[in-house]
Amino acid sequence: MSLLVVGTVAFDAIETPFGKTDKIIGGAATFISLSASYFTKNISLVSVIGGDFPQNGIDMLHNHGVNTKGLQIRKNEKTFFWSGKYHNDMNTRDTLVTELNVLADFDPVLPESYKECEYIMLGNLTPKVQMRVLDQLNSKPKLVVMDTMNFWMNIAMDDLLKVINRVDVLTINDEEARQLSGQYSLVKAAQKILAMGPDYLIIKKGEHGALLFNKNKQVFFAPALPLEDVFDPTGAGDSFAGGFIGHLASTGSTSFENMKRSIIFGSAMASFSVEKFGTERLENLSQGDVDKRVQRFVDLVQFDISLVEK
Amino acid sequence: MSLLVVGTVAFDAIETPFGKTDKIIGGAATFISLSASYFTKNISLVSVIGGDFPQNGIDMLHNHGVNTKGLQIRKNEKTFFWSGKYHNDMNTRDTLVTELNVLADFDPVLPESYKECEYIMLGNLTPKVQMRVLDQLNSKPKLVVMDTMNFWMNIAMDDLLKVINRVDVLTINDEEARQLSGQYSLVKAAQKILAMGPDYLIIKKGEHGALLFNKNKQVFFAPALPLEDVFDPTGAGDSFAGGFIGHLASTGSTSFENMKRSIIFGSAMASFSVEKFGTERLENLSQGDVDKRVQRFVDLVQFDISLVEK
Repeated sequence: MSLLVVGTVAFDAIETPFGKTDKIIGGAATFISLSASYFTKNISLVSVIGGDFPQNGIDMLHNHGVNTKGLQIRKNEKTFFWSGKYHNDMNTRDTLVTELNVLADFDPVLPESYKECEYIMLGNLTPKVQMRVLDQLNSKPKLVVMDTMNFWMNIAMDDLLKVINRVDVLTINDEEARQLSGQYSLVKAAQKILAMGPDYLIIKKGEHGALLFNKNKQVFFAPALPLEDVFDPTGAGDSFAGGFIGHLASTGSTSFENMKRSIIFGSAMASFSVEKFGTERLENLSQGDVDKRVQRFVDLVQFDISLVEK
Repeated sequence: MSLLVVGTVAFDAIETPFGKTDKIIGGAATFISLSASYFTKNISLVSVIGGDFPQNGIDMLHNHGVNTKGLQIRKNEKTFFWSGKYHNDMNTRDTLVTELNVLADFDPVLPESYKECEYIMLGNLTPKVQMRVLDQLNSKPKLVVMDTMNFWMNIAMDDLLKVINRVDVLTINDEEARQLSGQYSLVKAAQKILAMGPDYLIIKKGEHGALLFNKNKQVFFAPALPLEDVFDPTGAGDSFAGGFIGHLASTGSTSFENMKRSIIFGSAMASFSVEKFGTERLENLSQGDVDKRVQRFVDLVQFDISLVEK
């Protein structure tokens, strides 16, 4: 099925306890598209870059089957740039530089061929831009998944709530769920957030896994894979979202059972993403790599309570 | 099979955002024994109390099938007392009062009938006291599980390492695993700690679940149940340990598969424990309550990756 991905395509400069990079290719839509490409091939990208973005970055997306007709290129401007430094625990980071550049006045324009897409992934962006994308769709999509962050809760809550009310699945982290709901308990937070519109809420807890809630009070938990080293957490949440919606789009089912499976695939992709800087690990995976990684999740959590050894 | 439980029987006074208690019955061995009693009936307790400990506290243990022949009662002394206040996040607490009282010079003496026990649970205590218990056993037990805490790492590391080297399973929390190993990554921490002697390591992450590692690099993850409210976390780790070793003792198998199941039972008991102050919730459970709770863990994490819906 067709998948529309909206989000940033960017330059990142990253420093972790393991090393640092110059400007490398990043951005939410980049990670989402790459990750989803291991599950579904009909991916349409909407984003904006400057004239400084390298052709081999665009080629890399094409090589993963990503349609870039909706990728605006502003020759005389510069690509969005973010630089950050992770602390030793890898759970917290300082933003060193944020240059919006082409993103400052980004107006997403959907090519005609994009307007019938069935699965929509709204990567973290200004809520007004996310809304502009939804407004251009010709028909009601099968599933809209939205990512956002605390920044928009602080400065654009009204716009944010309007978008949240129009999506099927919201993905945020635990602190954002608490901020958005005013509830410390994630179970209570989920109930309040689902009352804002979405049918499903995914709360991402980083190294502590992810929770999926629906309106029938069902809950599913997917762990993060315990890794020897987390090399670079940048893009982990987007890789998760890409694997999640990519797997959903490939199967065409939005049942709770299929969402559970899709979260495991998303978690597997996130676990790859953090093993190298930037998109490096996501660029070169085989189907066998993905299958083996998913099996590690099966081994990690599966148990059979019905067996009793005496 | 027979289970020997060593640890504190105490008074606790607890303050949480939900309320506060006067002195109520607590202590590691109390929570462990109560929790284990839902799985196995042959439980022998080793601990010490003062003359101020109420008879109905001892009766409560008897009613759960706990043998108290090894519970020393020092009529003219006072029971160990701990008082603490939990912060709003329930993950951190301040200790307000610690009165060691009878615990200050506790010398555990095993009645003859205890010395053949097959399953041993060493609750958190001075390492020297834990060692004294192991030294009195007549035969090699089938499984020794040990709990400890950062306090002993700070003041009695040499003694602690000697006990760790003699046990089969060590249970500690994530921060303690990092302190003991000097490794931030829990995977690396587990490898270093397993090299200290135990065949299995359980790293407890509180609301983020628990990890089980063995020397063959197998790893299993059990989530904590997402609860609307955590009323009182006191004793959650001990309830976990009690359910874990109680289920192991009841089945008599120490296979990795059975350890996985036992960790789920332990997690279920911990989830009950935090629902009310002190031991209240653990005192009054039915087999049906336990079965239903375990089923919630099954529903929470089970998925079938082999099903593909198209």
